[in-house]
Amino acid sequence: MYLCSRLSRLYGGLLSRPIGRNAQPVWRPLYRSLMLSSQRKIPEFSSFVARTNTCGELRSSHIGQEVTLCGWIQYRRQNIFIVLRDCHGLVQVVIPQDKSAASMKKILCEAPVESVVKVSGTVISRPPGQVNPKMPTGEIEIKVKTAELLNACKKLPFEIKDFVKKTEALRLQYRYLDLRSSQMQYNLRLRSQMVMKMREYLCNLHGFVDIETPTLFKRTPGGAKEFLVPCREPGKFYSLPQSPQQFKQLLMIGGLDRYFQVARCYRDEGSRPDRQPEFTQIDIEMSFVDQTGIQRLIEGLLQYSWPGDKDPIVIPFPSMTFAEALATYGTDKPDTRFGMKIVDTSDIFRNTEIRFLQDALTKPQGTVKAMCVCQGAKYLNRKDIEFIRKFAADHFNQEVLPIFLKANKNWNSPVTKFITEEQRWQLTRLMEIQDEDMVLLTAGQHKKACSLLGKLRLECADLLEMRGVVLRDPTLFSFLWVVDFPLFLPKEENPTELESAHHPFTAPHPSDIHLLYTEPTKVRSQHYDLVLNGSEIGGGSIRIHDAELQHYILAALLKEDVNLLSHLLQALDHGAPPHGGIALGLDRLICLVTGAPNIRDVIAFPKSFRGYDLMSSAPDFVPSEELKHYHIQVSWPTDSEAEKKCIESVTPPRKLSF
Amino acid sequence: MYLCSRLSRLYGGLLSRPIGRNAQPVWRPLYRSLMLSSQRKIPEFSSFVARTNTCGELRSSHIGQEVTLCGWIQYRRQNIFIVLRDCHGLVQVVIPQDKSAASMKKILCEAPVESVVKVSGTVISRPPGQVNPKMPTGEIEIKVKTAELLNACKKLPFEIKDFVKKTEALRLQYRYLDLRSSQMQYNLRLRSQMVMKMREYLCNLHGFVDIETPTLFKRTPGGAKEFLVPCREPGKFYSLPQSPQQFKQLLMIGGLDRYFQVARCYRDEGSRPDRQPEFTQIDIEMSFVDQTGIQRLIEGLLQYSWPGDKDPIVIPFPSMTFAEALATYGTDKPDTRFGMKIVDTSDIFRNTEIRFLQDALTKPQGTVKAMCVCQGAKYLNRKDIEFIRKFAADHFNQEVLPIFLKANKNWNSPVTKFITEEQRWQLTRLMEIQDEDMVLLTAGQHKKACSLLGKLRLECADLLEMRGVVLRDPTLFSFLWVVDFPLFLPKEENPTELESAHHPFTAPHPSDIHLLYTEPTKVRSQHYDLVLNGSEIGGGSIRIHDAELQHYILAALLKEDVNLLSHLLQALDHGAPPHGGIALGLDRLICLVTGAPNIRDVIAFPKSFRGYDLMSSAPDFVPSEELKHYHIQVSWPTDSEAEKKCIESVTPPRKLSF
Repeated sequence: MYLCSRLSRLYGGLLSRPIGRNAQPVWRPLYRSLMLSSQRKIPEFSSFVARTNTCGELRSSHIGQEVTLCGWIQYRRQNIFIVLRDCHGLVQVVIPQDKSAASMKKILCEAPVESVVKVSGTVISRPPGQVNPKMPTGEIEIKVKTAELLNACKKLPFEIKDFVKKTEALRLQYRYLDLRSSQMQYNLRLRSQMVMKMREYLCNLHGFVDIETPTLFKRTPGGAKEFLVPCREPGKFYSLPQSPQQFKQLLMIGGLDRYFQVARCYRDEGSRPDRQPEFTQIDIEMSFVDQTGIQRLIEGLLQYSWPGDKDPIVIPFPSMTFAEALATYGTDKPDTRFGMKIVDTSDIFRNTEIRFLQDALTKPQGTVKAMCVCQGAKYLNRKDIEFIRKFAADHFNQEVLPIFLKANKNWNSPVTKFITEEQRWQLTRLMEIQDEDMVLLTAGQHKKACSLLGKLRLECADLLEMRGVVLRDPTLFSFLWVVDFPLFLPKEENPTELESAHHPFTAPHPSDIHLLYTEPTKVRSQHYDLVLNGSEIGGGSIRIHDAELQHYILAALLKEDVNLLSHLLQALDHGAPPHGGIALGLDRLICLVTGAPNIRDVIAFPKSFRGYDLMSSAPDFVPSEELKHYHIQVSWPTDSEAEKKCIESVTPPRKLSF
Repeated sequence: MYLCSRLSRLYGGLLSRPIGRNAQPVWRPLYRSLMLSSQRKIPEFSSFVARTNTCGELRSSHIGQEVTLCGWIQYRRQNIFIVLRDCHGLVQVVIPQDKSAASMKKILCEAPVESVVKVSGTVISRPPGQVNPKMPTGEIEIKVKTAELLNACKKLPFEIKDFVKKTEALRLQYRYLDLRSSQMQYNLRLRSQMVMKMREYLCNLHGFVDIETPTLFKRTPGGAKEFLVPCREPGKFYSLPQSPQQFKQLLMIGGLDRYFQVARCYRDEGSRPDRQPEFTQIDIEMSFVDQTGIQRLIEGLLQYSWPGDKDPIVIPFPSMTFAEALATYGTDKPDTRFGMKIVDTSDIFRNTEIRFLQDALTKPQGTVKAMCVCQGAKYLNRKDIEFIRKFAADHFNQEVLPIFLKANKNWNSPVTKFITEEQRWQLTRLMEIQDEDMVLLTAGQHKKACSLLGKLRLECADLLEMRGVVLRDPTLFSFLWVVDFPLFLPKEENPTELESAHHPFTAPHPSDIHLLYTEPTKVRSQHYDLVLNGSEIGGGSIRIHDAELQHYILAALLKEDVNLLSHLLQALDHGAPPHGGIALGLDRLICLVTGAPNIRDVIAFPKSFRGYDLMSSAPDFVPSEELKHYHIQVSWPTDSEAEKKCIESVTPPRKLSF
């Protein structure tokens, strides 16, 4: 009855809100809010087709009506009852047992489960005692008069029932069957409705123009992650862009003022879980706007399109600088649903006798960082601590020291004896340590120590939640702006050279422009990220609208080939307005809103994490004869090359991604 | 003032409807109808930004208000007046002449045209006699108090004025400047608004689900026009699909019931005018629907989204069989805005002495066809007739005979003396010939003779319109369904083999299914085309939902490799509902609605007809070093091969296009 109840929420079912933490979201309020906001009527789900009604919409108010329904046989009981399913829900159909209806009975009783049938009959109330309160249509059933088999179903590779577990590979191979599950129906319908509300907000309420930009384009500097498309002219290739970045800027220069697009983007990253080679972003750009303007626009957008069954979003969202996020949460995308903040305890340990803290503090820029794991002393065991210390050693080459604060207020740690009473008191006050908490101490350079504790914060949260502690409320949506990123980062492969932290069109912070010519690594940017529950769901910036500044950054600082961007530089010289924008990652946003375990569950036909369509087996080999049209041939790698490629693919990709 | 008045129509300007045939469409009624239909308020064009108002919205009701405007300097007069332009229109700004405002005057007088400025000031009424009634903001002007130069403009490659003619190549090279023209602003905004209304109709009124389907997919049988995308696995390629055909069918099998998508599609056709390598279609599919259901849905969709300044669409649209369209208009996409129908005059000429008619009628299936060109005798001259006869000879290897009916009722033709009085009387009655008309006669096989006259019908219409005769009213939108197409056509290269007239998933007409096994060429399909003013703007069909029938058609009749479609055949066996759909060509539809001369004018960043982006010069060469990632190398053609390719590219592409 799962599908039935979940879908009924989508379209105004009569269920009340389920109780409990893991209850599925209730769609009725969303639906109602959709209705109220623009005076819409309920969509006509049965217009233009053979049926008079959907299965899921029938209620006791329909009793006595003659209806025609089309749907799939969900299951059959005692050759008397059939549960019929359509996009809207489930309804019970009663098979007539009298001899005159023998042929109809034969149709309905012999059709395999998941066969498609059309039935006509009368809506009647269920006999006393047979009402099913768990089923939105549970008060009625259909007394069938005629039935027609529209298509029989052959043996299924798996049952279309939510409780039947299947591997994801099997689900992807038979995606057309998996789409019939209540979860996929729910996810895709929520996605469609939320995007529709976003369009209304942008287009109808705020005058944005929906403009389609090309996906067959030109390679961009550093576009190592781009897909290429050979054309029929020998040696020439289009490129599938990673975002419409250049086009949206050109639209602003073209005076379109307010642009948006639900844009398909492409990124050739090879195998990475939770990434797709093609993905969708809500792409936005505005002229004459500043950072605050974009932030207020997006807050309004999310508030307007937010499903009504969830707690309303509180706006404006809090904001935090990149420096603060790093210092407090050890990451640029903090999950602010829970505390366990990182605290600088360097001053407390200035005169410590603990060797590794001492060592760190004597070095330039050495710090001691601490994080209080709530109830860590109660729930984490020796094995957990071993895991934590190994994690720190393996990934950060760092030492981590645990201090357990027992219920008897005793401090328990390998170094307890080296911590003075004064230090204990200071730590307790600074970090608000309570009984049964655990403190993790580490020392070293600020960024490294914070990053480590940032990772351990999430690892500890996982461990605590496995033990039943609720840290990250799944019904809570904690948005956060992260701002004031650095404009440049030293290149990983050669730290004396610079690369853009985000992309080379990002404007520098107005207060830092003078530093461009002296200390470029200290320049903050006008980039902003939107973070939700520890995931980056969007990012954008105010762009450079000055041709000279753009040229200086590209040529002098980033050493890029400016010829590849000559059209954009020229455009900036011809009356480019100040402008800025943002892109929201739609797949990830919908994934978080629906609570889906991964983004493949909010995409109708996703690729596997290796980039395969398991249903059609794309990508596929192409006969060399057919490649001649495109003037290309395959360079088959030798065995040793293939091995080398394997190693290369592990190397992290470049950051420059426009 | 052109931009100003056109844009004001978009957003509720105060202009009344211009008079005359060539008047630009007036947007105010569209806008009003948009407002009324869903109780929307006027979009806030100045939310989240520095300006308080847009230039184009200011009226005498704003007099006395302090406003801040951002825009481009359209032009400057006597260093006293500036006309400022933004996305919304034009407004006049008065530069203060007093000494205290010298620095501001300097900014506003020295900034080149098309520079971007921000001005603040007071809305005042224009002095008596200076009101400009042609300008929506012509009653007021801005007494400026502060001004800021936001970006100076360098020398422009052309002036941003509608009356300044530029070549299309120049417009495409500087597309960001061309987008500032009133025509491009109008076209892109109309497109956005019309698509938004379509979404409302489908999603909010009829329960459709907007679902994104992949563009990185697998090659389809006969997909010779597909772009390939090499991936990082040697020898394997994705393909960019020509339409989401397979996915939309799989969504129906997945129980999504009603799908739509504004879908990007790709077709690698090489150089063809009025085609783009990537294009957009409104893609729709429904379960449990028949041909009539889809037709009523689309009529409702177009009626709902139709711009309100045009005459409302009358629905249902007329319908015509393919056979009737061919016999009457010589084409499957007749322009029904005007008559000049083709008439079969075989019976009249059974006993003729005119040799070439006689010859034709003695052959099996020989016919004599005639078409009456209204006022052709008055407007067409000897040169025109020469052109017509040459056209017939060159393209159809056919003879055409003109008969002029003079004002004095004399018939004038090379064969006048061979036409009997009785034949004259019959022709006049059958074809409703009037004084000063011209009749074109041709003879031969039905299809060939009709096709020729169908082409000549359009050629004659062009000639007559060049002489000032109005045949095709540009304000008229004449929709037509064309139905009952043949399911198969003989292959051009080998007429004993069959190919699908549209695509192999099209269902046969129910009355003709038995012919599949005996005379497949006689089977009609359940395909339907939507034609507007002689252009095909959409096509669709009821699909095959029976796996066995689909397999028979693919394997036995079309001789396709069924392995490439095994996933679809398998899906049909697992409870596929009856389903059908349609796709509307959005670019062409918007082109017809806006009256744009070609589809490049309704696309923000189109490719040239050779597939180039003239702004960025995509596609481009890629260093062979970088191709190694994709395991491909370029096969550079030898000179003789290059020549051969050139010839090949003229060969018409295959019809099979799914």
